[in-house]
Amino acid sequence: MKRYSLGIDYGTNSCRSLLIDLDNGVELGSTVFNYPSGEMGILLDPKDPHVARQNPQDYLEGLEVVIKGALQQAKDKDPQFDAAHVVGIGIDTTGSTPIPVNREGTPLGLLPEFKENLNAMVWLWKDHTGYAEAAEITHLAQEMRPNIIAKCGGIYSSEWWWSKILRLRRIDEQVFGAAYSFVEHCDWIPAVLSGNTDPLTLKRSVCAAGHKAMFSNEWGGLPDKEFLSKLDPALADLRDRLFNEAYTADTKAGHLCNEWAQRLGLKPGIAIAVGAFDAHMGAVGAGIKEGTLVKILGTSTCDLMIAPNHKPLADVPGVCGIVNGSVLPGYYGIEAGQSAVGDIFLWFVNHLVPESYGSTVGEKFVNMEKAMAGKKPGFTGLLALDWNNGNRTILVDVRLTGLLLGQTLHTEAHEIYRAYIEATAFGALTIIKRVEEYGVKIDEVINTGGLSIKNATLMQCYADIIGKPMKVSQSEQTCALGAAIFAAAAAGEGSWQELQSNVTAVREKVYYPIPENVAVYAELYTLYRTLHDAFGTSEWNGKVNHVMKHLLDIRARQS
Amino acid sequence: MKRYSLGIDYGTNSCRSLLIDLDNGVELGSTVFNYPSGEMGILLDPKDPHVARQNPQDYLEGLEVVIKGALQQAKDKDPQFDAAHVVGIGIDTTGSTPIPVNREGTPLGLLPEFKENLNAMVWLWKDHTGYAEAAEITHLAQEMRPNIIAKCGGIYSSEWWWSKILRLRRIDEQVFGAAYSFVEHCDWIPAVLSGNTDPLTLKRSVCAAGHKAMFSNEWGGLPDKEFLSKLDPALADLRDRLFNEAYTADTKAGHLCNEWAQRLGLKPGIAIAVGAFDAHMGAVGAGIKEGTLVKILGTSTCDLMIAPNHKPLADVPGVCGIVNGSVLPGYYGIEAGQSAVGDIFLWFVNHLVPESYGSTVGEKFVNMEKAMAGKKPGFTGLLALDWNNGNRTILVDVRLTGLLLGQTLHTEAHEIYRAYIEATAFGALTIIKRVEEYGVKIDEVINTGGLSIKNATLMQCYADIIGKPMKVSQSEQTCALGAAIFAAAAAGEGSWQELQSNVTAVREKVYYPIPENVAVYAELYTLYRTLHDAFGTSEWNGKVNHVMKHLLDIRARQS
Repeated sequence: MKRYSLGIDYGTNSCRSLLIDLDNGVELGSTVFNYPSGEMGILLDPKDPHVARQNPQDYLEGLEVVIKGALQQAKDKDPQFDAAHVVGIGIDTTGSTPIPVNREGTPLGLLPEFKENLNAMVWLWKDHTGYAEAAEITHLAQEMRPNIIAKCGGIYSSEWWWSKILRLRRIDEQVFGAAYSFVEHCDWIPAVLSGNTDPLTLKRSVCAAGHKAMFSNEWGGLPDKEFLSKLDPALADLRDRLFNEAYTADTKAGHLCNEWAQRLGLKPGIAIAVGAFDAHMGAVGAGIKEGTLVKILGTSTCDLMIAPNHKPLADVPGVCGIVNGSVLPGYYGIEAGQSAVGDIFLWFVNHLVPESYGSTVGEKFVNMEKAMAGKKPGFTGLLALDWNNGNRTILVDVRLTGLLLGQTLHTEAHEIYRAYIEATAFGALTIIKRVEEYGVKIDEVINTGGLSIKNATLMQCYADIIGKPMKVSQSEQTCALGAAIFAAAAAGEGSWQELQSNVTAVREKVYYPIPENVAVYAELYTLYRTLHDAFGTSEWNGKVNHVMKHLLDIRARQS
Repeated sequence: MKRYSLGIDYGTNSCRSLLIDLDNGVELGSTVFNYPSGEMGILLDPKDPHVARQNPQDYLEGLEVVIKGALQQAKDKDPQFDAAHVVGIGIDTTGSTPIPVNREGTPLGLLPEFKENLNAMVWLWKDHTGYAEAAEITHLAQEMRPNIIAKCGGIYSSEWWWSKILRLRRIDEQVFGAAYSFVEHCDWIPAVLSGNTDPLTLKRSVCAAGHKAMFSNEWGGLPDKEFLSKLDPALADLRDRLFNEAYTADTKAGHLCNEWAQRLGLKPGIAIAVGAFDAHMGAVGAGIKEGTLVKILGTSTCDLMIAPNHKPLADVPGVCGIVNGSVLPGYYGIEAGQSAVGDIFLWFVNHLVPESYGSTVGEKFVNMEKAMAGKKPGFTGLLALDWNNGNRTILVDVRLTGLLLGQTLHTEAHEIYRAYIEATAFGALTIIKRVEEYGVKIDEVINTGGLSIKNATLMQCYADIIGKPMKVSQSEQTCALGAAIFAAAAAGEGSWQELQSNVTAVREKVYYPIPENVAVYAELYTLYRTLHDAFGTSEWNGKVNHVMKHLLDIRARQS
């Protein structure tokens, strides 16, 4: 008998479903729903560029549309398809994306009295209004609870749970007062599907709690009241209305309630898995294992690694987070990432690449790639820092900006594009070097995301710079695929190990490092690292006057 | 009775004439001749991008065309015009642009046996093939004759006289052997017009000799034989076939010979003035005086100042040259410059500005200027170094390259253009600060060149950054105008002071510094200077990690 599983992936601008056959991973249906609210699903404030909110109503509408869409596609392909054989639903979302909710767990943004108040809406991961609060939390934690902050790489981010809640507390008494509790987006959807949104009992994801809310069983769950009350007594009070336990994604959050079963055309009572963040589930869908770094190459990147939790793992400075069970049960999940990768290329092509390369963004990318074909590393004489959106790992500093060095009067757009590709690879290498220094060995990289499929030049560059084989995940929906794997695990349809090995794969094409390129890039990396440390750290002290000349030397050799 | 004077300006791609009325500076005629040889007048070597030569035949053809053209225009305008009232001809050219000549002073490039040999042609100022020789000369001079090299800012350039001659000696025995002597372009044209091209007796320009050949009466003319023989014994031999005296441009080089008088339709015997370089004569045509910096704003800039020669003037480190009489008799001429200004803007608009700003280069510039209208200093968050073509003053280093810092995912092309405008102004300010430190006071800047007339945004930026009134020369042909002034002075038609004051003027529109902008730019300049010193000097040692954050602070305040 056939067994199917559904994964739902909530992204920044849209959500999508993936319906798979659990025996072979065949993808039977997948539908996308673009959030109708705001600008591409994001509620903005023209007065403050840091604001990024979402309408919870979009999530509910999307949930129905994408699940029904996937089921319909499966039926269209195979009239024998029976939705009754769907064994469970798994959810992944962006994060930290907290929702202020009332006593019943209803988002305040869905209540008529708060419909017009942006602060009552969902605080999307990329909302940076809490940057001052983040600095305050970092400062206090470094003084008072260094062990706690060390687990998030030493610096608390404005994108995270407590920064946002503290910010709300500071700016909107009415909304904060009306918020009985707060629920991560990835916890709220499973709660809705299982018919229990009570903030005190709904099951919380250890992935979200551990990476963003400083939750760990090591110190008794969320940060203690003494610490929270130093930030604001209201946070210490709130702690009682949050949670003391958090779960791995193979745990059952509940069973599909009748109301949603009817709405979706699924069997009531099937398993709803505990949610997790998109990247973490994406790593599972890409086939993460010990020794594998999964790199989700998108507008930004998320880098996931795991290490067995039966032996101690040192804190890794500047790495976004180390959380027991956040990726897979039995392993520490180690999360790092780059604040902008594809976003830098898109910014460049949209703002600085002339029409001589083509009339559309797609043509421009293709023709720039063609123009650099066959060129050797270092031919541009350029070096860039990949900080146009700050640096998430290992510097953890949003107040960094881009740098491009080495321009002459002959520098062309495709050379700058190449320099930016290289810069993002140098950034990736910096992360790998850091985790390897702290004992996490990486043998291979599995890449997912559009860039890994579409951009062979980039992939070869990454292989040459990182010096490890670069593989590409078979599925283009690894996040939803990971969610579907956990849905099946929560439903008791097999261990996650079996399920993962049945439904994930990498593509035939593997990019291997080319030794002569590796050597030149190692030289260029020392220059990148000089600029990285000089502009990114307060400890650095030294000279940079050799950088331009060294680049000219390399260019002369490589041209 | 009317008195007219002719100035001929030999540029990089063309030459042009200017015929003026000496009583009021009215411009009666001006014609341009584009050199027909090579690419836009430059003979290139596809195998070596450093090669830039010219065909001497182009100069002779051009001379006839532009003088006859100007006379014809004057006649067309006023049938009463009489060419017999032209009192003299003055010449300015690029430099150092040496010509290998035979015993008769005929350029080897005009001889049939050398017609195909690029090395026998004119070595144009921008020929950089002698970069290794320049380094060798610098090194030897710093060791052996530090007083001599100090007068050219401490570093000898590949663009200059001895680098080129030594290079020729090293690479082409046949041409070097056939070269009885070498003559600067600016000395050869007056010699041709006056009918005496004998390299031993033709009058040499102190401007060319002093700025490029390390000539000074302080040390007995050209560098001594002991020094030259250390470079190559052949140079010491050559010294005897060069010159021991050099003259200011108000000196008569000779009288118009019959042959050329006939060819041009001018009276034989009129004064031919000693030549000089374009920028130096341009400064005179722009109205240079003590306290005035004349800035020739073109693809690169040339900055000219003067200081009275009756009191000693310290060497100014990193300033291209200080030569007694090179601009005006009785004054030290002080020359500095930036390797690229307009060239950076042209590179940027040609390679990196998309068609959303317009379909032509002109439209793109205009629309970028519009897009930055009304914006306050620092609004871009960007900072650039103006080194896309190296740095001529004060670092004197061709092996420097560009830098742009502060890019985000929202940075637009017009913001980068603004950053480049500011960078070139910071570069200009760095020069001014250096000469002021060494006792040359600057009260105002007179600008010439296309940018000063066309780009009001740039001019206001310059005023705000430099902190001094920015004026614009009335004439658009200041170089040829300066040459015409000297022609009249050589003809005895008045002192250069009188002549200059009769025929030069500045435009009504003066750009004054705006105090609130001056304050912000002073802050930005400290950041520019940090990057300048960090990337441009080996002495610097320190930190740069504040730069991006400081730019973000300024941007936040100014937006």
